[in-house]
Amino acid sequence: SEIKKIAVLAGDGIGPEVCAEAVKVLKAVGQVWGHDFQFNEGYVGAAAIDAKGDPYPQETHNLCLNSDAILFGAIGDPKYDNDPNAKVRPEQGLLRMRKALGLYANIRPVTAYEALLDSSPLKHERISDTDLVIFRELTGGIYFGKPSGRSENDQEAFDASLYSRQEIRRIAIKAFEAAKKRKNKVTLVDKANVLATSRLWRDEVKDLHKSEYKDVELDYLFVDNAAMQLILNPSSFDVLLTENMFGDILSDEASVIGGSLGLLPSASVGDSTALYEPVHGSYPQAKGKNIANPIATILSAAMMLETSFNMVDAANSIRQAVKDSLNEKIGTEDLFKSNPHTTSDVGDYIKGKI
Amino acid sequence: SEIKKIAVLAGDGIGPEVCAEAVKVLKAVGQVWGHDFQFNEGYVGAAAIDAKGDPYPQETHNLCLNSDAILFGAIGDPKYDNDPNAKVRPEQGLLRMRKALGLYANIRPVTAYEALLDSSPLKHERISDTDLVIFRELTGGIYFGKPSGRSENDQEAFDASLYSRQEIRRIAIKAFEAAKKRKNKVTLVDKANVLATSRLWRDEVKDLHKSEYKDVELDYLFVDNAAMQLILNPSSFDVLLTENMFGDILSDEASVIGGSLGLLPSASVGDSTALYEPVHGSYPQAKGKNIANPIATILSAAMMLETSFNMVDAANSIRQAVKDSLNEKIGTEDLFKSNPHTTSDVGDYIKGKI
Ligand SMILES: CC(C)[C@H](C(=O)O)[C@@H](O)C(=O)O
Ligand SMILES: CC(C)[C@H](C(=O)O)[C@@H](O)C(=O)O
Repeated sequence: SEIKKIAVLAGDGIGPEVCAEAVKVLKAVGQVWGHDFQFNEGYVGAAAIDAKGDPYPQETHNLCLNSDAILFGAIGDPKYDNDPNAKVRPEQGLLRMRKALGLYANIRPVTAYEALLDSSPLKHERISDTDLVIFRELTGGIYFGKPSGRSENDQEAFDASLYSRQEIRRIAIKAFEAAKKRKNKVTLVDKANVLATSRLWRDEVKDLHKSEYKDVELDYLFVDNAAMQLILNPSSFDVLLTENMFGDILSDEASVIGGSLGLLPSASVGDSTALYEPVHGSYPQAKGKNIANPIATILSAAMMLETSFNMVDAANSIRQAVKDSLNEKIGTEDLFKSNPHTTSDVGDYIKGKI
Repeated sequence: SEIKKIAVLAGDGIGPEVCAEAVKVLKAVGQVWGHDFQFNEGYVGAAAIDAKGDPYPQETHNLCLNSDAILFGAIGDPKYDNDPNAKVRPEQGLLRMRKALGLYANIRPVTAYEALLDSSPLKHERISDTDLVIFRELTGGIYFGKPSGRSENDQEAFDASLYSRQEIRRIAIKAFEAAKKRKNKVTLVDKANVLATSRLWRDEVKDLHKSEYKDVELDYLFVDNAAMQLILNPSSFDVLLTENMFGDILSDEASVIGGSLGLLPSASVGDSTALYEPVHGSYPQAKGKNIANPIATILSAAMMLETSFNMVDAANSIRQAVKDSLNEKIGTEDLFKSNPHTTSDVGDYIKGKI
C-alpha cells in the first residue's frame, strides 16, 4: 500500500513522551493492518526557539507541506510564560503554523467514559450520555484581525475581528457533514445580538442550511447561554459550530465534562493537510518523569487515521484498545491514583491490544 | 433621613413580578430601619418599544439621571428573539443605557447555598466553599468598538475591540477595593498571549497593583483556562476581573455553580449612578403566572442598599431573611419542586422576616 508520511512535531514539556507512545501505537497499527507509515521529526515551540530562534522554522513548515498528516505534541515552556510582551513566544509559532497550513477547522470531540465518571466535577446523571463535538474556526476572527496593537501615545490598545462568508461556509460544511454521520444536529454559537461578525455567521450558516442541509437540525445559541448549557445539559448537544475566540473558551470549558483532560484528542483540518494533537498542554512539571497520560495523543492518532487516511477500522481498533485499558484500570496517575502506570506502560498496553 | 429616589425599570416578561417583590421588601426595610425610599417607574426593553418605539426612551434616561439608584427587572420578548437583524431590538436599549449612564463595572457575586447544593450540576465537594465575585467591564471592548459592520460587497463583517488605560484602571480599582474587604485576591482573566487589548489590561493592572495594592494577591489566567478552572476549582477564586466579552461568557458560566440562576443578583456600577438587576432573563413562558423566583431581584435590592446607599446592616438583614427562607424550604418551583410557593408568597415571607 501507499506510504503515508507523518510529520511528528513533539514540541515542549511532555510532548516528546506522549508523541512517542502514539508513534508506537501507529507502528503497531501499520503492522497489524498492513499500512506503511513513515515518521519524520521537526522542531516546534520553545524547543524550536532554542534550536533555531523561531517557534515555527521554515524547515518545519516544509516538512509539514511534504507530509500527509501532522502529529503534534504540545508547546509552551515556563521560561516564556507570563511574559506576553516577550519578543518571540511559542504561541506565535502555533498561530503562524495554523495560518500557513490553512488549518481552519479545529475539531474536538468530548465523550464521557463510564470508567472515569467519578473524576468528573459534574454529577453522573448530568453527563453520562454526553457525546458532542466542537467545530471551532481556527484561522480567522480576532486572532488574526488587523489592525491590532497600541495607539501612538500608548494609552489605548485595539484588536479587530474579521470574517468572510467563504471562511464561515467552509467550516460550516464540515460541521454539517459531521452531523449527518452523528446525531444530525448543529448548534451555531454566536453573539448575534451584539456582533456584526456573528450576524454574518448566522446569515451564512442559515443560507447553507436552507440550500444544502435542510435535513440536519440547526439551532442557535448565544455564547453566554452556551457556556451555561454546556454544564447544565451537555448531552443536549451534537455538533457545536463557532468562531475562533468563542471556540477557544467553550472547548476548554467542555474539556472538564469527561473528568480528564488527559483523554481528549483534537484535529485541526484544512483543505490540504491536517494536524492532530492532544487538547492538554505541555505540562512542564511532568516532563521527563514518565508519568504523563499518553491517551489523548494516542486518540489523536486515531483521529488522524480516520480523518486524513480514511482508515476507519484501524482508528476504531485504537479506540477500542483505549476503552479496554481504561476498563482494566490501566492508566497514568491522573486517572488512577491508587495504582498508576507509567506513560510508556500505558502505551505498551494499548499497543498490545491492537 | 434623606429621601432615596429609586428608578424601577421592570421591563419584560417576569420583570414586573420580580421587581414588585423587591420593592415590597425594600419598603419593609424602609419602615424597620427608618429609611425613606421613593419609587418611580420607567419603561425599558420590549415594553418600551411597544409603548414608545424605543427600547431606552429619553424619558427613561432622564428618570435614571434623576434617581439615586436603579432597580431593573429583565428585558427580552420572544417576538424580537432570533431576529438579530431586526431594526429595533431590546438589547440595543440595554447597551445604550449602560453606555449613557456610564455603568462600567458589572459585579456578580456567586455563592453556593448549602440548602440548594443538590440542584447544582457540580458535585458537592467541588463547590461547597465557593464565594467569588466577577468584575466585568461593561461599557468597552468589542461591544462598543468601531468600526463594526459589513463590507460594501456584503462578503465580510468586522468588529473592533478597544480599551484605554483609564477604562481598565477605574474598574481594576473597584476590583482591588472589593478584594480588600474579601479574601484579598484578584485574578485577572485575559488572552494576553493573543490580544493586544489583553496585554494592555495586564500592563495597567500590574502597574496599579504595584503602586497602590501591593498587599492584595494578584494572579493571571488565560480565559480558556479560566473557563475550566471555574468548574474544576470554583472555590479557588475570590475576585475575578475581566473585560466585557469574556465577562459575559464567564459570568453566565459561573452562574450554574450555585444550582440556581434564580438566586443570583448583580450590580452595574458607574461613577454617578448604579443599576441592580437579577442575572436571569425575562423568562417569557412564566410571565404573569406568579411562579417566577423573586430572590435574585430581592438580593439585587440588598446590593443596592450596600453599594449605593452604604446601608450595610439593612442589606444584611435582607440576605439573612433570604437564607432563613431557603432553610425553611420557602421558594418557588425552580428551587423546591415538591412544595413550591408563589412569587408573591416568597416575597411576603422574606418581607415578614425583615
Ligand atoms: C496557546 C493559544 C494561542 C491557543 C489558542 O488560543 O488557540 C490555545 O489556547 C489553543 O486553544 O490551542
Ligand atoms: C442581552 C445581552 C446584550 C447582554 C450582554 O451580552 O451584555 C446580556 O447577555 C448580559 O450579560 O447582560
